[in-house]
Amino acid sequence: MFKVNNNYAELPESYLFSEVAHRLAAYREANPDREVIRMDIGDVSIPLGDVVVKALCKASEDMGTRTGFHGYGPEQGYLFLREKIARFDYKEHGIHTIGAEDIFVSDGAKSDLGNFVDMFGDDIRIAVTDPGYPVYVDTNVLSGRGGKLVDGKWSGLTYLECKPENGFKPQVPTDGVDVIYLCFPNNPTGVALNRSELKEWVDYAIEHGSLLIFDSAYEAYISSEDVPHSIYEIEEAEKVAVEIRSYSKTAGFTGVRCGYTVVPRALEFKSDSGNQISLNKMWNRRQSTKFNGVGYIVQKAAEALYTAEGREMIRENIAYYKKNAAMLREALEKKSWMVIGGIDSPYVWAFPESNGVYSEGASLTSWQLFDKLLSELNISSTPGVGFGECAEGWVRFTGFNTYENTLKAIERIESGILK
Amino acid sequence: MFKVNNNYAELPESYLFSEVAHRLAAYREANPDREVIRMDIGDVSIPLGDVVVKALCKASEDMGTRTGFHGYGPEQGYLFLREKIARFDYKEHGIHTIGAEDIFVSDGAKSDLGNFVDMFGDDIRIAVTDPGYPVYVDTNVLSGRGGKLVDGKWSGLTYLECKPENGFKPQVPTDGVDVIYLCFPNNPTGVALNRSELKEWVDYAIEHGSLLIFDSAYEAYISSEDVPHSIYEIEEAEKVAVEIRSYSKTAGFTGVRCGYTVVPRALEFKSDSGNQISLNKMWNRRQSTKFNGVGYIVQKAAEALYTAEGREMIRENIAYYKKNAAMLREALEKKSWMVIGGIDSPYVWAFPESNGVYSEGASLTSWQLFDKLLSELNISSTPGVGFGECAEGWVRFTGFNTYENTLKAIERIESGILK
Repeated sequence: MFKVNNNYAELPESYLFSEVAHRLAAYREANPDREVIRMDIGDVSIPLGDVVVKALCKASEDMGTRTGFHGYGPEQGYLFLREKIARFDYKEHGIHTIGAEDIFVSDGAKSDLGNFVDMFGDDIRIAVTDPGYPVYVDTNVLSGRGGKLVDGKWSGLTYLECKPENGFKPQVPTDGVDVIYLCFPNNPTGVALNRSELKEWVDYAIEHGSLLIFDSAYEAYISSEDVPHSIYEIEEAEKVAVEIRSYSKTAGFTGVRCGYTVVPRALEFKSDSGNQISLNKMWNRRQSTKFNGVGYIVQKAAEALYTAEGREMIRENIAYYKKNAAMLREALEKKSWMVIGGIDSPYVWAFPESNGVYSEGASLTSWQLFDKLLSELNISSTPGVGFGECAEGWVRFTGFNTYENTLKAIERIESGILK
Repeated sequence: MFKVNNNYAELPESYLFSEVAHRLAAYREANPDREVIRMDIGDVSIPLGDVVVKALCKASEDMGTRTGFHGYGPEQGYLFLREKIARFDYKEHGIHTIGAEDIFVSDGAKSDLGNFVDMFGDDIRIAVTDPGYPVYVDTNVLSGRGGKLVDGKWSGLTYLECKPENGFKPQVPTDGVDVIYLCFPNNPTGVALNRSELKEWVDYAIEHGSLLIFDSAYEAYISSEDVPHSIYEIEEAEKVAVEIRSYSKTAGFTGVRCGYTVVPRALEFKSDSGNQISLNKMWNRRQSTKFNGVGYIVQKAAEALYTAEGREMIRENIAYYKKNAAMLREALEKKSWMVIGGIDSPYVWAFPESNGVYSEGASLTSWQLFDKLLSELNISSTPGVGFGECAEGWVRFTGFNTYENTLKAIERIESGILK
């Protein structure tokens, strides 16, 4: 008789985004005359740039001709794109340890993050930040590494607590963990790590033989001088870290679906039999067996991002969203909110003065604050607690809405009763 | 210390297609003046049709406008496509048990086949046909269900032998297996199963509580009256079967990347705690956690396949490849080869008279036959043994090359010394 993977039954229904949608829908139905501004969404609002649309159409037309048709492509991605990535995203930033052979093009960060657990052996300890992107936890629970769920935390996972006291920067663990998920600039807090802070994690991984999974989805938002754009700017990181990037938040590709993962050839671990195993070869095998590569048309669109016009488009997009985030940040600070992020990130992480002293526990939970923002200001936010227990009382605002809507939201914040 | 999934070390390097490529390259280098015709490839040769190119360009242009831009889409696929699939691929064929909610759009059959092992519990017995698509075996070995590799077979898997004696049709097992991979029309043999033959498998699955994974990639090639186009034409199949389809071989989407998997709401199994678990909900959870859906542009292209023009294009493509296959079949039969497939399938499965009596073992192995076809006729084929031990001595020819190249290959077969 067929038996299912019981870990699926253990994992509670995904709650955060569906509950936000549910409460929003209910509020809108009860208040059809009010215009709610969505400052919760992590999705972009600027349409695809001309350079991308042209590349998509050109590649589509080529696919309609005998000479320009492309069938199955390499599972790793076309070399034309991987070479551009190696050059523009690494070599030009002074990183010479990463080449095209280390790069795997994919349909997005979520797929690669989710599928990378295929590489994991049994009996390894996984560490995640609290708060953090729920996919890190959920994919490990589904593959049987969660243990028991007690008071909102999985016994099998190590939570790296991020709180206002430590500036929402996780501390290197005192005990041994084998895989560490790091996302900086962070979702949801918008916090970035500087060179010396990142180096601590690389040093830890080298010392303990751990694997770092570095989620770099928001790299393009970095403007602070001392914040590295890639984990590989830290010496020897290529021996311990995988880096996952996406064009979603950079070039508005959330609906196009393209990203890439760097699995350096230098990344090796011991197998049970004592042999050195190349994670690059393993991932190559995984992708060759379970994936047929990203479509040719989409890869041509990604390639266009590395032209002068494409790079300019990305700069403009990022500047637009960063301006939104900076304005939000300023408006909230004026109202005496505690504000984190919004500098090297599109996300603003916030806690209102009226919500008590965070170290003594918030007066309002994140969900109560969500409801209050919705009913009093008609602004939708993302409740921080959805990213982890440490974030109770906080909410996330996004800079991804339009400039016009962000302005409106700010007016409401400024004139609103909510401190 | 991080430990890898040791099953990766157990699985030998993928051999079949890389070895074909390797031998081809070596032959071409040694014989630069000879033109080799590739009758091995499973990739299509007809470029995308106008209706598809137009849909791709239109959607790309829309994505460049404020009103037409689409960011994150539903992980399950857009309803506009899922409703078309439900109507045209199921309802219009008299199947009323499958609706849009049972359908999950994906980037292709290989991804879904590979990822579906995430749903499997421990200690279940997997059955595959021999010969069969290597992905069924490899993905189960990588997830720890292979056992030991002995004489080319995995001790943990049940092989359903397909041989000339049984017309390359697997027999329903006498012992209990929990998951059965079936692909009909078959890759590589081209054999299709009729209604009563398919019904045996559904009956078996109902009786034993097994899950059928029905790979239906070649459904569009069916022309025989008594061969069902979907497993759901068999009564109660929606309670035991998942069906996986792809636009790759139908509409030339091998480089576009789109397909779908049907996981009926009626498909339920018991969890360890005795609860009924919906596989549809589990797969939805898997996809929502580890996948961000197929790009909007690609889904609009797939939608265009359901217009009158799109359906006509598919009919023409299929007719073209089937004609190639039929010509190949005829030519090989004239030379007294034993030929299977090529009727409801683009693949022709063949064994030359000169190769002895199959039941007594072939005189030439599949790889020797491959070499002989390459050096004597300058035709590249796919060695059957690459799909399973039962296929030793056989080779697969494909109808996917152009008509002109297929004609050339046939001339060589007809004039060649090889019987």
